[in-house]
Amino acid sequence: MKNELLKVVKIGGKLIENETKFSAFLEDFVALEGPKILVHGGGNLATEIAGKLGYKTQMFEGRRITDADSIKVITMVYGGFINKNIVAKLQALQNNAIGLSGADGMSITSKKRPVKEVDFGFVGDVEKVNSKFIDSLLKQDITLVFSAISCTKEGVLLNTNGDSVAAEIAKAMSSIYETELYLCFEKKGVLADTKNEDSVIEEINREKYRELLEGKIINDGMLPKLHNSFHALGNGVKNIFLGDFRLLKKESVYTKITN
Amino acid sequence: MKNELLKVVKIGGKLIENETKFSAFLEDFVALEGPKILVHGGGNLATEIAGKLGYKTQMFEGRRITDADSIKVITMVYGGFINKNIVAKLQALQNNAIGLSGADGMSITSKKRPVKEVDFGFVGDVEKVNSKFIDSLLKQDITLVFSAISCTKEGVLLNTNGDSVAAEIAKAMSSIYETELYLCFEKKGVLADTKNEDSVIEEINREKYRELLEGKIINDGMLPKLHNSFHALGNGVKNIFLGDFRLLKKESVYTKITN
Repeated sequence: MKNELLKVVKIGGKLIENETKFSAFLEDFVALEGPKILVHGGGNLATEIAGKLGYKTQMFEGRRITDADSIKVITMVYGGFINKNIVAKLQALQNNAIGLSGADGMSITSKKRPVKEVDFGFVGDVEKVNSKFIDSLLKQDITLVFSAISCTKEGVLLNTNGDSVAAEIAKAMSSIYETELYLCFEKKGVLADTKNEDSVIEEINREKYRELLEGKIINDGMLPKLHNSFHALGNGVKNIFLGDFRLLKKESVYTKITN
Repeated sequence: MKNELLKVVKIGGKLIENETKFSAFLEDFVALEGPKILVHGGGNLATEIAGKLGYKTQMFEGRRITDADSIKVITMVYGGFINKNIVAKLQALQNNAIGLSGADGMSITSKKRPVKEVDFGFVGDVEKVNSKFIDSLLKQDITLVFSAISCTKEGVLLNTNGDSVAAEIAKAMSSIYETELYLCFEKKGVLADTKNEDSVIEEINREKYRELLEGKIINDGMLPKLHNSFHALGNGVKNIFLGDFRLLKKESVYTKITN
């Protein structure tokens, strides 16, 4: 019996860093009715803290390598500072919430990404979402707030892509709830022209997606979001929306993903 | 019906920093049967990180003032890094666990300590423990791991004494469970002579406590532990033990608090 609608919302790091936008987002989030889950990124604070602590950020072809120092900072900043502050802010808005990493209640189990040409370090891909445990909290009217940190079966904490975490949670929970996925980031939606903020494509179905891929219309940052979206859509998630910090209100333009 | 025995265990920051002792402690902790809750301190890592970040530690008569920078670091280090790493270590030992601050599920609500001669900043005294929420997790065979951070009703995170947090949790849970409190720290127990590590007082009842206070036998660091212990004992907690990292095994000497 899937009678209730669960909303899984991902909020990007750049939006969290913008105090005005983040406050507006949280107000809209609190106003959502029914069970809900928030997954947050971390933005630049981890890089800033790592720099101050004298840790060097290692990159490979523009992608960050999560070494032992990096996962330490990520656990501090995303798993601690940002996560607990979001929970406290929700409590202040009378929205009972709990902050979790994937290690907590083994809610998100992952596997370390296999080493190919380069070892990206403590980076994981989601293997299993503990839907039963998550549901036990939702049933108590508690909003779950996840930092994008997962955990191997052997108890190793791994940095994990926030969009993937949100998509995997939505996918897993769709066995219990009608599930919607909202990916909120710094753009109004998927843009047809990255130089034009108003070129939002309002609907993308699989055929359109193929066209966009073939025409190389979509920029690199957007590709994983769309990949995750169609993966979720093909695995039980009912509706998927991409947009900015006001996406939850659905008053302005956004992108809807359809079959 | 109070048929089950709940163990609430506090582990001090100095023990967490000692890798060998902390591993031995965790093994003993995992071996405990029945429901259990761990409360951890933080040790010197927060001070170390604060120093590296260029935050100044303000003190008043030997006591730390928790300013805005300090609570930020405490939330990172205690609420994030240490808390999530303990949870991950417990998962590695096949002990399902969840890491919480007082903000999570409003599990530990506190009040900011009133400003008298000096403002100690973001420091709180426990007002209410959400025993119903805590019990809902224990009933799922999940071990709770608390960092000593509480939260006001208005959503302000506050640094809180770890021994008090443990004692207040034990006190509140004693309405549902037979409850035992274990305070593990760097000594074998309460010492009659602080210069002699083997001068452990094996039992302290209220009368003995009064004697010790009057004779000024107990050093300043131990006073809050004993105060918390007798407060807990007078409020439903069945047994209270103080000792070192091997206290849970009860194989060597320790201090027992009795009426």
